[in-house]
Amino acid sequence: MNRKSLESMQCPVARSLERVGDGWSMLILRDAFYGIRRFDDFVQSLGIAPNILSHRLTKLVAAGLLERRAYSTRPARYEYVLTDQGRDFCPVLLALMAWGNRHFAPEGLSIVLTDTLTGEPVELAQVDLRTGEPISRGRHTITAGAVANERTRANVEFRNAHLAADRH
Amino acid sequence: MNRKSLESMQCPVARSLERVGDGWSMLILRDAFYGIRRFDDFVQSLGIAPNILSHRLTKLVAAGLLERRAYSTRPARYEYVLTDQGRDFCPVLLALMAWGNRHFAPEGLSIVLTDTLTGEPVELAQVDLRTGEPISRGRHTITAGAVANERTRANVEFRNAHLAADRH
Repeated sequence: MNRKSLESMQCPVARSLERVGDGWSMLILRDAFYGIRRFDDFVQSLGIAPNILSHRLTKLVAAGLLERRAYSTRPARYEYVLTDQGRDFCPVLLALMAWGNRHFAPEGLSIVLTDTLTGEPVELAQVDLRTGEPISRGRHTITAGAVANERTRANVEFRNAHLAADRH
Repeated sequence: MNRKSLESMQCPVARSLERVGDGWSMLILRDAFYGIRRFDDFVQSLGIAPNILSHRLTKLVAAGLLERRAYSTRPARYEYVLTDQGRDFCPVLLALMAWGNRHFAPEGLSIVLTDTLTGEPVELAQVDLRTGEPISRGRHTITAGAVANERTRANVEFRNAHLAADRH
């Protein structure tokens, strides 16, 4: 992935992917949500090569998504714990989980997001907290924000013109 | 990314990432949501090398997320359009957008999800459609589904034991 081209993008999706935009990083974060903290446990869970894991952990710490904490001094040992920013990545993982369950689990579900109060599986949806309305193409759209540059504005206009054409 | 290790995982997040688990694929899907369909337009929007784009488009078509359609026969020209399955990826992109806007846009927002009826920015949240409740660590958890294998069950147990310990 061409880092430079990503950095020059204003798009918040691109900025997010700059931090977690390879499958391993997202799976490491998933494991962190599972409570995995230690290097060897990540290796075992992911079947990832130690040098690649080490590189990805360093990157996730630098990005502020994991915190590296000493849990032993002799010998020096570290564990990796989600920061608030990392914890805030949870909705992305849940959206990926829902998408995977819907389309790529032909044999049935292995992991189910569940309501502990009712014991029922969750039917995940995105809503606008201000109105309670589910996000839909009919009602919601993207607009250029205050700091949008010309390119971003052009992208937004292109999209909205295209969507308007689709509706006719 | 070690394809074999991913395939052996039951996890729906891993299965999703097997299809889109590199930053480029997700950005291509983002552009498809922007209405971009043609090879040269993807190249221009992403600043991606044509051979990499070609490889990623082929992969996304094979995964059933984009459909390749002829829009001209002489010369033969193709465009790439989201399938229903690809369109269903939108919540992941919106979650990435919200996360990026919250944490990685210190200078202000360039892209804003907006309610066209009120003109107000959306405050994105995930809820359970069955109950209307926002997803929270207090109320919702993951459980092993009907086809979960031993490893998946062990992961779920590890996580839930770990979360229970966190609460004490």
